[in-house]
Amino acid sequence: MRFISGDKKAILEQLHSATSADTQVETEASVKAIIEDVKANGDAALFRLTEQFDGVRLTDFRVAQSLLDNALDHVEADFIKALEQAKVNILSYHQKQKQSGFVDTEKHGVMRGQLVRPLETAGIYVPGGTAAYPSSVLMNILPAKIAGVPRVIMVTPPGKDGLNPYILAAAKIAGADEVYQIGGAQAIAALAFGTESIPKVDKIVGPGNIFVALAKREVFGIVDIDMIAGPSEVVVVADATANPRFVAADLLSQAEHDTLARAILITTSAAFGQAVASEVEKQLQTLPREKIARASIANFGQVIVAESVEIAFDIMNEIAPEHLEIQLENPMDYLSYVKNAGSVFLGAYASEPLGDYFAGPNHVLPTSGTARFFSPLGVADFCKRTSFISYTKDALAKEKDAIVLLAEKEGLTAHARAIEIRFEEDDEDENS
Amino acid sequence: MRFISGDKKAILEQLHSATSADTQVETEASVKAIIEDVKANGDAALFRLTEQFDGVRLTDFRVAQSLLDNALDHVEADFIKALEQAKVNILSYHQKQKQSGFVDTEKHGVMRGQLVRPLETAGIYVPGGTAAYPSSVLMNILPAKIAGVPRVIMVTPPGKDGLNPYILAAAKIAGADEVYQIGGAQAIAALAFGTESIPKVDKIVGPGNIFVALAKREVFGIVDIDMIAGPSEVVVVADATANPRFVAADLLSQAEHDTLARAILITTSAAFGQAVASEVEKQLQTLPREKIARASIANFGQVIVAESVEIAFDIMNEIAPEHLEIQLENPMDYLSYVKNAGSVFLGAYASEPLGDYFAGPNHVLPTSGTARFFSPLGVADFCKRTSFISYTKDALAKEKDAIVLLAEKEGLTAHARAIEIRFEEDDEDENS
Repeated sequence: MRFISGDKKAILEQLHSATSADTQVETEASVKAIIEDVKANGDAALFRLTEQFDGVRLTDFRVAQSLLDNALDHVEADFIKALEQAKVNILSYHQKQKQSGFVDTEKHGVMRGQLVRPLETAGIYVPGGTAAYPSSVLMNILPAKIAGVPRVIMVTPPGKDGLNPYILAAAKIAGADEVYQIGGAQAIAALAFGTESIPKVDKIVGPGNIFVALAKREVFGIVDIDMIAGPSEVVVVADATANPRFVAADLLSQAEHDTLARAILITTSAAFGQAVASEVEKQLQTLPREKIARASIANFGQVIVAESVEIAFDIMNEIAPEHLEIQLENPMDYLSYVKNAGSVFLGAYASEPLGDYFAGPNHVLPTSGTARFFSPLGVADFCKRTSFISYTKDALAKEKDAIVLLAEKEGLTAHARAIEIRFEEDDEDENS
Repeated sequence: MRFISGDKKAILEQLHSATSADTQVETEASVKAIIEDVKANGDAALFRLTEQFDGVRLTDFRVAQSLLDNALDHVEADFIKALEQAKVNILSYHQKQKQSGFVDTEKHGVMRGQLVRPLETAGIYVPGGTAAYPSSVLMNILPAKIAGVPRVIMVTPPGKDGLNPYILAAAKIAGADEVYQIGGAQAIAALAFGTESIPKVDKIVGPGNIFVALAKREVFGIVDIDMIAGPSEVVVVADATANPRFVAADLLSQAEHDTLARAILITTSAAFGQAVASEVEKQLQTLPREKIARASIANFGQVIVAESVEIAFDIMNEIAPEHLEIQLENPMDYLSYVKNAGSVFLGAYASEPLGDYFAGPNHVLPTSGTARFFSPLGVADFCKRTSFISYTKDALAKEKDAIVLLAEKEGLTAHARAIEIRFEEDDEDENS
């Protein structure tokens, strides 16, 4: 792990210089070509691209309803039980995010309000292959279901040996309405534009590789998307009261995701930082995914020694991490210090994997510093708002002159006329 | 106006064929070049591009605080009064959108919750020139202020004769913290990346021309943006009880915005449709912006005759208009028929310009059918959510086996280890 210390300014400068540049240009061009292909050729393009990229020749993308209905028959009972338990926690947390609209009738003759309604269709992308995560199926589908989306469509790349049974079981438990075997940029294009067999959706969510991420960005505006996801990261803010073994294990749970994952410890104690670094090395040697985790730790692992807890939080807020663990003596005292973070884990036992699988808050979180402005996936992502107003003639009469004046200042005479014309009949009546 | 009638299927087919294709490719390349220029060269690029595009040579982008503070001295008192009245309505409506976080302590030893916090900086783009709308300044800045954004930065293109005094007065009334004279794609790039003199922001909102719209799309992910705005549209659903003069005036208030604006009447009465079309022609002749409005009506004006009110709403939902007026005998009965619309105006006196300037709901609305998934600009756009959890050891113990099982099914051993390690010390203690 790379050690960084010094005053706040020096640490921030080193942090910024460590941020990696991305090389997306070539991929961008092929993603655009795939999208145009699917838009122009529909299913024919999808069959061809699926054979090309997934090495599978399909005759139908739709997973038979009977396969989905019987998905639980093909996985272990303890897995189903664990996933059902997770579902209970995810549902009870996300229920609290539900918003209702409002009506305001404070002024005579005026009604103003806001409707909150579910999207009509949502497309959930679920990665395949070695990165197949049943937990992500729950985290993406359940908020859509709570929002009330009537048609939740899951897509996932076809495997050479058929679909991953755990993914299909999770889709069943989460309540996916339809499942299609299709992946990559071509899946995103199909959901955005629709094809003969894939329905066009209102919003596409879910993680994916660089092709998927760039395709989502490309179709943004034609449909909505959740967020632009980058490599995952964790920041642990810890003092010498924390357990270095716990902290090291949590850093490694991040590092095993991806060689680009970032695991960062910010501590006020250099000695504690050393202890964690030793533990990281020790625990690394026992991990099946040692190679990935070791590369992540070597390239992006950092121990930052801050001069005070306040500075530690300033640095953390600058990083704006996806996951933040606060392993300080009185963790709750520091929640108010958090400005930018996707999800916060407070205290020694709120280990990050608890949030990944079980506690209930969503594990789809803003990455790469976007917690400055993006939020965890939630029920609001599957809703849209509509405002409404109703005015009586008397209520409009009271505000008419101001509206006409503002419209005329903006040079929009037809706007002014639309208000005035509603009072002209009276004048005519009076004159008749 | 173009008349469309027939059964629902025939109408929808004709509607879809009328949708215009856009030609963005060339503009996209120059927008990318501008963004790269500003990212690489900062203020130097901004000064150069401002001279090139706005024809103004500046030495400083920042509008002096004294100019902003004294902005009300340079506009008429009745304008200030009208804008202040509008502000009261906008504030009282948007206050109702404020969300608070929550804490859930339903399970022993478990705390789960959600924080809702304002963004730290917001960038508000305000167009200049003939399309300078003080009302838009209020509609964009006030929700950010209600959200609690401490630093609201407004940018607007420099004019050859200095800044538009009405725009500056609106900025003062709305409470802009800083104002910079800078426009176009270069302004968006400056706000996204920051330059020597322009601060980097968390989110960019506000309308603009095609350069601004494409630049916002391009920087999405580096910062957040509000939405991808296209030409404006109104759908009026009316029956024979409506006043054709009112309806025509409302259609024209939309048409005068832009030659690409769409004004659509959906009615159950062909005779009423004819009456509105005649009124549109009659009123057109009296408008100062006749040329723009006439082009919009000729190209995109439509009278759709539907076989029933239900079908009228089905067609409306398919269009998903920015503005929807319901001028039916009992308008309130039909709010439940609205699935996709930005803002709904109910009854004969809720004319669209009332919403543009005054009633309180935001006039920044999803356009071009994006009301299927985008929402009016609101307080939520200037907030971010953060989830948090805290577990005691006992609480974690109850869920530990399920978490470990799920992590292992996903092949993420370090995730499982991070949970298990927290219980190993006990075993060691017991064995010692």
